[in-house]
Amino acid sequence: MNARMQTFTEKELTHIHDASMDLLKNIGVAFNDDEALSIFKKNGFKVDGHTVFFSENNVRHAIESAPARFRVAARNPAHTVSIGGEAVVFAPGYGAAFIITRDGEQRKATLADYDVFCKLVQTSRTMDITGFLMAAPSDVPVETAHLDMLFSNITLSDKPFMGSPVSKAGAEDCIDMASIMWGGKEKLKERPVTVSLITPLSPLRYTAEMTGAVVTLARYNQACVFGALLMAGSSAPLSIAGLLVQQTAEILAGVTLTQLVRPGAPVIVGGTSGILDMRTGALSMGAPEVARISSATVQMAKFYNLPARSGCAVTDAHFPNAQAGFESALNLYVALQNGSNFILHAAGILGAYNAMSFEKFIIDEELCSQILESLKPVTITDESIDLDLIKEVGIGGNYLTHPKTYEQCRTAFYLSNLVNRRGFSEWQADGAKPINDRATEILNERLSKYVKPDIDPQLEKDLLSYVQKRKKR
Amino acid sequence: MNARMQTFTEKELTHIHDASMDLLKNIGVAFNDDEALSIFKKNGFKVDGHTVFFSENNVRHAIESAPARFRVAARNPAHTVSIGGEAVVFAPGYGAAFIITRDGEQRKATLADYDVFCKLVQTSRTMDITGFLMAAPSDVPVETAHLDMLFSNITLSDKPFMGSPVSKAGAEDCIDMASIMWGGKEKLKERPVTVSLITPLSPLRYTAEMTGAVVTLARYNQACVFGALLMAGSSAPLSIAGLLVQQTAEILAGVTLTQLVRPGAPVIVGGTSGILDMRTGALSMGAPEVARISSATVQMAKFYNLPARSGCAVTDAHFPNAQAGFESALNLYVALQNGSNFILHAAGILGAYNAMSFEKFIIDEELCSQILESLKPVTITDESIDLDLIKEVGIGGNYLTHPKTYEQCRTAFYLSNLVNRRGFSEWQADGAKPINDRATEILNERLSKYVKPDIDPQLEKDLLSYVQKRKKR
Repeated sequence: MNARMQTFTEKELTHIHDASMDLLKNIGVAFNDDEALSIFKKNGFKVDGHTVFFSENNVRHAIESAPARFRVAARNPAHTVSIGGEAVVFAPGYGAAFIITRDGEQRKATLADYDVFCKLVQTSRTMDITGFLMAAPSDVPVETAHLDMLFSNITLSDKPFMGSPVSKAGAEDCIDMASIMWGGKEKLKERPVTVSLITPLSPLRYTAEMTGAVVTLARYNQACVFGALLMAGSSAPLSIAGLLVQQTAEILAGVTLTQLVRPGAPVIVGGTSGILDMRTGALSMGAPEVARISSATVQMAKFYNLPARSGCAVTDAHFPNAQAGFESALNLYVALQNGSNFILHAAGILGAYNAMSFEKFIIDEELCSQILESLKPVTITDESIDLDLIKEVGIGGNYLTHPKTYEQCRTAFYLSNLVNRRGFSEWQADGAKPINDRATEILNERLSKYVKPDIDPQLEKDLLSYVQKRKKR
Repeated sequence: MNARMQTFTEKELTHIHDASMDLLKNIGVAFNDDEALSIFKKNGFKVDGHTVFFSENNVRHAIESAPARFRVAARNPAHTVSIGGEAVVFAPGYGAAFIITRDGEQRKATLADYDVFCKLVQTSRTMDITGFLMAAPSDVPVETAHLDMLFSNITLSDKPFMGSPVSKAGAEDCIDMASIMWGGKEKLKERPVTVSLITPLSPLRYTAEMTGAVVTLARYNQACVFGALLMAGSSAPLSIAGLLVQQTAEILAGVTLTQLVRPGAPVIVGGTSGILDMRTGALSMGAPEVARISSATVQMAKFYNLPARSGCAVTDAHFPNAQAGFESALNLYVALQNGSNFILHAAGILGAYNAMSFEKFIIDEELCSQILESLKPVTITDESIDLDLIKEVGIGGNYLTHPKTYEQCRTAFYLSNLVNRRGFSEWQADGAKPINDRATEILNERLSKYVKPDIDPQLEKDLLSYVQKRKKR
């Protein structure tokens, strides 16, 4: 077809791959963690100080041993998700320190906000997995905040959840708490029940915290989503082609580590790299270049036959307005239509990851659903065309009064309870409600109807006592 | 690739084609105009009352004689546009009776509003062609409003313009006025200088007005854009497959008429069909089904190797808000990435064609530009990757301070003067301006800088006296 969206050729993808192999072989990637370095050495890698050098064979071996598809089990089996292939998983925004209120004010996020996001995921028809750091709580000590968030993740929702990659110890807490729920650490190794976000410190580095987390999580067969967040112009070259090469090298270095720790450990690869806006000096995630990077990122993951992460409902706007709407839509759409499997920041995020908005969360859920609906193929068969009906209605007829329309009208189309579809007068008569106010209403309805999912009281007690004990250390 | 957007197979497109041929042969299409009917008869078509029946051969012949590409000349040659192939042309919203003010109030549109849109197109870096009925002026007599609009189109802008298809007489006025500018009617036949919107009266009819306009415009080699506006559930079946078949039949019937009048007359085919929202009874243009129809519509046009019309910045919202942002983005993006050549309603339209908004016009221009930018392919070469630079910056380095970043930073990325990319504090310090207020500022800047393009005073006098004479008739 005459489609304008670029599909990279095998040759172009190989070109990116080859250049990233050159980087991995000749420049290497630094891992600031002794255990990781000794694992690399033990496996015959060249290591110089913190820098690890990779041969093409090393990397190929890792790519082949990582699974193309896997499942992340939920404590409610109905919520277990598939990752890879044709599947897509949505997770909320991640890492923001602030909340933007419905009036547009910015305030620091709290653990109570975090819990609201847990409840929103639990009651969501769109979000598949509870996030981590869905808002960074400012009212609990930062050293132990991950314990509070993990406790909320496990008890307030029975969907799969994102784990804690804040450090080696943070990842161990995640493993310990998950193993309370899943019958012990050895049981955990049988299946991933968490996905944790691992971000390289670009260019070409992994921090001690991230490296320690990778080793711990992979050891227990828990999924790592490698989320490159390169910034073209500061931590990556201005050239998108160059950025893709550097990003690929960083991701493959991390993937290789997981497979040395445990062959077959589940990974998701990709990221949401952005650009440095040269006028403001700020990270821009709403820029059209981000869509180009996102599209290439998915295609690169598919080239390696690994589950792809790309796309997010991100925007540079600080309020859910027209800019937020169109930037989020473009970012999500490009990733989804290219086949992204894991969409982090799929709901709620504002200001290039600066803040979360409850209203935007509701609006983004709708957006995610609508995009999936818009991508459904149209079945072309004699039955779906139903030429007899068209002939029967004929020239100048009306389908509205035909019995078939009446029969099918309730199920024919996607219905929304958020967006306005009334004509202007009806909308006015109904109070001319702005979409953001309607989002607030839906938010309140959802929270009022939220029911905490059943949990074995002993397990909840055990989890709580783990958290309390760990806080005393 | 693993792309989720459906690419129809040749077999599926042929299936749609075959079913529409069945309709054209056995049900036919009604044309409520004697001249058109006699043209069909003269060419051996079976005609019964107003109903014309088409053989596959008739239609194939027309499809082959219509050009795959053509140009529409502007009186300023720098603004002449190409239609078809890889090219894309943006035109503003069309047909709305109302203006939504910046405060969200609805008021009737006036000729002064219309002139503002002419000036916005003239000063636009995005809109390629001045529309027609960019707002339906309520303050001039409806019988002669087309004369006022054509006069504004020709004198306030030197871009190509959309012509008047309001009736046979209205199309003749368009031809007469264009011929004043272009040195006579015979000169006009040498090249299209207008594009006029022809909408069938679904199902399977053309009004007397539209039919008369088609015959007149084709006779003078002026382009007709066939813009099906079927509504699934009232003027078309609920089934998208069925809608596509009916839409194809309606369009091809119109195209066939143009080619009987003048083989080689330029046409654009497609439309912006929507659905009847079953909850509200209103036309919905923001629904995700519209994107599916839009994608299929472009692919059908490409199947016939004809210039494609599809996509629009349309929304069901009544204000430029988050809903307007994401619905417009999805609609535009799907059409553009599928290869649409002519995007009508690319700027300003609200409320499923109910109203125009000056602020949304400015926002949509930005959206159109950003989507085109996001679809630019990434060049993968040794030069674009520049591995030496990545190696030089190395592990933990910073690209910001590298001379190459300084050299390239002004041209590397798309810049916007509308959207916010500042961090929250900087944005607050700058007055926390909402995007809609920034759009108003840009609107005012544009209008204050507008300069009426040069026109031969005698030609302008002739145009004006034509309009005055016609109004006295």
